Amino acid sequence: MTEAVATRSRKKRRGRDASRSAEPGQNPHLEGPYITRGIPTYDLLGEEALEQIEATAERILAEIGIEFREDPETVRLFKEAGGDVTEVTSDVWNIKFAPGLIRGLLSTAPAQFIQHARNPANSVQIGGDAMVFAPSYGSPFVMDLDKGRRYGTLQDFQNFIKLGQSSPWLHHSGGTICEPTDIAVNKRHLDMVYAHIKYSDRAFLGSITAPERAEDSIEMARILFGSEFTDRNCVIMGNFNTTSPLVLDGVTTRGIRAYAGANQGSIHLPFLLGGAVSPLTMAGSVAQCLAESMVSCALTQLVRPGAPAILACFVSSMALRSGSPTFGTPEPALGSLVMGQLARRLDMPLRCAGNFSTSKLPDAQAMQQSVMSMMSAVQCGAHYILHSAGFLDGLLSMSYEKFVLDTDLCGALHAYMKGLTVNEDTLAFEALAEKGPGEHLFGTAHTMRHYKTAYYDYALNDDRPWETWDEQGAVDAATRANARWKHVLNTYQAPPLDIATDEALRDFMARKKDSMPDMWY
Amino acid sequence: MTEAVATRSRKKRRGRDASRSAEPGQNPHLEGPYITRGIPTYDLLGEEALEQIEATAERILAEIGIEFREDPETVRLFKEAGGDVTEVTSDVWNIKFAPGLIRGLLSTAPAQFIQHARNPANSVQIGGDAMVFAPSYGSPFVMDLDKGRRYGTLQDFQNFIKLGQSSPWLHHSGGTICEPTDIAVNKRHLDMVYAHIKYSDRAFLGSITAPERAEDSIEMARILFGSEFTDRNCVIMGNFNTTSPLVLDGVTTRGIRAYAGANQGSIHLPFLLGGAVSPLTMAGSVAQCLAESMVSCALTQLVRPGAPAILACFVSSMALRSGSPTFGTPEPALGSLVMGQLARRLDMPLRCAGNFSTSKLPDAQAMQQSVMSMMSAVQCGAHYILHSAGFLDGLLSMSYEKFVLDTDLCGALHAYMKGLTVNEDTLAFEALAEKGPGEHLFGTAHTMRHYKTAYYDYALNDDRPWETWDEQGAVDAATRANARWKHVLNTYQAPPLDIATDEALRDFMARKKDSMPDMWY
Repeated sequence: MTEAVATRSRKKRRGRDASRSAEPGQNPHLEGPYITRGIPTYDLLGEEALEQIEATAERILAEIGIEFREDPETVRLFKEAGGDVTEVTSDVWNIKFAPGLIRGLLSTAPAQFIQHARNPANSVQIGGDAMVFAPSYGSPFVMDLDKGRRYGTLQDFQNFIKLGQSSPWLHHSGGTICEPTDIAVNKRHLDMVYAHIKYSDRAFLGSITAPERAEDSIEMARILFGSEFTDRNCVIMGNFNTTSPLVLDGVTTRGIRAYAGANQGSIHLPFLLGGAVSPLTMAGSVAQCLAESMVSCALTQLVRPGAPAILACFVSSMALRSGSPTFGTPEPALGSLVMGQLARRLDMPLRCAGNFSTSKLPDAQAMQQSVMSMMSAVQCGAHYILHSAGFLDGLLSMSYEKFVLDTDLCGALHAYMKGLTVNEDTLAFEALAEKGPGEHLFGTAHTMRHYKTAYYDYALNDDRPWETWDEQGAVDAATRANARWKHVLNTYQAPPLDIATDEALRDFMARKKDSMPDMWY
Repeated sequence: MTEAVATRSRKKRRGRDASRSAEPGQNPHLEGPYITRGIPTYDLLGEEALEQIEATAERILAEIGIEFREDPETVRLFKEAGGDVTEVTSDVWNIKFAPGLIRGLLSTAPAQFIQHARNPANSVQIGGDAMVFAPSYGSPFVMDLDKGRRYGTLQDFQNFIKLGQSSPWLHHSGGTICEPTDIAVNKRHLDMVYAHIKYSDRAFLGSITAPERAEDSIEMARILFGSEFTDRNCVIMGNFNTTSPLVLDGVTTRGIRAYAGANQGSIHLPFLLGGAVSPLTMAGSVAQCLAESMVSCALTQLVRPGAPAILACFVSSMALRSGSPTFGTPEPALGSLVMGQLARRLDMPLRCAGNFSTSKLPDAQAMQQSVMSMMSAVQCGAHYILHSAGFLDGLLSMSYEKFVLDTDLCGALHAYMKGLTVNEDTLAFEALAEKGPGEHLFGTAHTMRHYKTAYYDYALNDDRPWETWDEQGAVDAATRANARWKHVLNTYQAPPLDIATDEALRDFMARKKDSMPDMWY
């Protein structure tokens, strides 16, 4: 694909947006390939408490160690780097790390990097003052108000990519937005990566469910971006989970080595349910999170120093009467704020939080939980926020309605992140002086100058008087969201894709699919 | 009422709570008469920007001035204090204040004070590290899912007091929770104050809609607390709005003088809709808010130095396509954070933000807006948060369902405000070491020790698996809230009130009501 095509594509989408300016939800002044942070981070803890958490993470690594499974090469790399290896069984090893060893290995990890999109205008900065929103990841089910909950299909997967691509408030196409369960387990990664490339012109995540699927994902990125460009730049990333507590299995470490070896990005996520796989108390969960994520990131630097790696944090809580995991609760929001501080002290990018909810509907609970969680993401200084749209049902379901509710919230957060500008113009003394006490400011020059950009215009909130709202059907936000996602899908326009590239990708997929029988587990 | 009765009342309510421990939403470890802040404030702006806003506020007061209407005594007080008075008409004056004059007058205002409740266990600290939640205030309508929207009645008013009193997550009974429109305008303040005293044993707000109604409210407080105690302590407060931009009318200033003269508390609120009565840009709105609220507060110190006064901030936005006010949007959330900083620089208590929404239903929009606004309240360092429960429809309606959804959120914010404790126990190294890599922590001593208090237990969130939820009716949060408020009203128990006090209050009301004909405007 040439850059000219890419630029045209971006312009085209922008052009279409402008033509719809009478529609609600138009905030062109806030659009961009990613958010540049205009507000400070919210720092919860002081120096001493942070040092205690860091010391505990080091103590976990030094005294308990991390268990590695079924990947002797990873064990060899860590041993060579100074890890203290104990063989537990023939394919399980415990490695202990002297205090400071892992932190030292991370010194070559970049503080920030660019993940390139096929449309250069959509390339994203990961780290520093940048913040990137991506859709939710990994749900087996999808749901909408018409058809309820059912297993996700490739059609759903493509739909969510289209919904994401159509929103100016997401910056990244994400990865396994939902599981396309109608495609064989060993082949669906091909359809997923292809769908990201075909229906979006933003950056995306590849597969990590098996090392060969990671390799296939990276190979498809090479077809799109060229091998040489791919070797020098981050064009795809993988999102890896540790097996908490304190385990890294072979599928994960082999996948990490595949991405890092190709100089591609990787996200290193301990998925911590307090009381189950980490301590119930948030200080302990965060210490464990730091320990696990640091080790996982360090592997990338052993494979290829300078390879992009992202620390990550998913500390959650549980309903203590039922043992069910809970999301969008206050304690993990605090944990996220602390993890932001710890990531800055490591000078590494952070993935953290998202629009989490355990609700089974796009209702009051859904957004109450989402906003509490999402505010912690933008306030903690997270750089890459997976699960920014669609998350319901404790991550088991992607919701069509929640997706558009969430993207609207993401838009509002663009306004929030811009911060509060203080200068002579915004202080507006003249506007007040122009009219004087008791006179409204509707007609002042200041109002006329600012009215288009002063406030975020929501696509879905109904702010009309009750009478108007009542006359026009008295519908709730979920019902409006239902109409909204259908409208967005109906008006979706695919970004142009170079025909030769498209053919090469299809050819690769066909060859790969023909090379193996379908597997369903 | 004796203190013994009060203590018994508190114990009784607590006792009932304990007996319901199998019910969701029980978090006795988080309960208390108010929240003591365990987390830092979120400071948005640096020194220079704050000074620019303060300088603009001073410039507004010095060069534009504040317009006073129909209260020569207030004009006399400000003139005596150094204000530069210009007579605009025979009962309208403009007063300009040299830079620093108003700020100087505020030096006698207390940084914090206690508002006493008739149950001493429920007395609240206003200011400092304390945070107090009170119900929403001032809606003419009420709504619930069964009967929709209709004008509020005294029955509704009493119901909301009961709902508030029954929640451990509110700390204050509020004031005009809804307008009891079935009672004559000139008499309803008596029924409202009586209802607060009768159905709640928490602190409350009195009437401000006319100076004589303010006096009646204070007189009823004297009956309850005794004249001498009332003269020495804050036992009632009034919530006063400026007439923005830059006007203080006579009803307001006479009311302020009544409360301050009786040594009672007062809240000084500019209700600023950006673009209408203040600049569209948040820096200007905040500067104007500071100017107006400082002047209004300063009046209290002229009347009685040391009288409790609360700065206040309600900066809002509007839907720029329709001109409708909007609430719970990102720009005012930033404005609140700044107002928190400005209040701390004045060393005065602050009322700010709340669970705002323009939604007409307790739906996704309602809580999305509420949480964004409410997070700004707790993060900005506000001390008194009116509108903490029930707010829908842009403050035009009190919602029964939203009330209980909001109190549940208020509970979660108790956990949030507690902060993240870092010590050897919470760092939980031993818990991880006990089991080692790959083993869950369900049975560890650490988990057993913390499981009851680690996470806030919501009363209304449904965190169960989808299948369980679906089998049990698949209801949304609004439907659960509908059942919840009915259950709370059905199990409400009135706090005991001394019979002689009750009779004296009823007698005062009867005499006042008999002394004047009903007025309906």
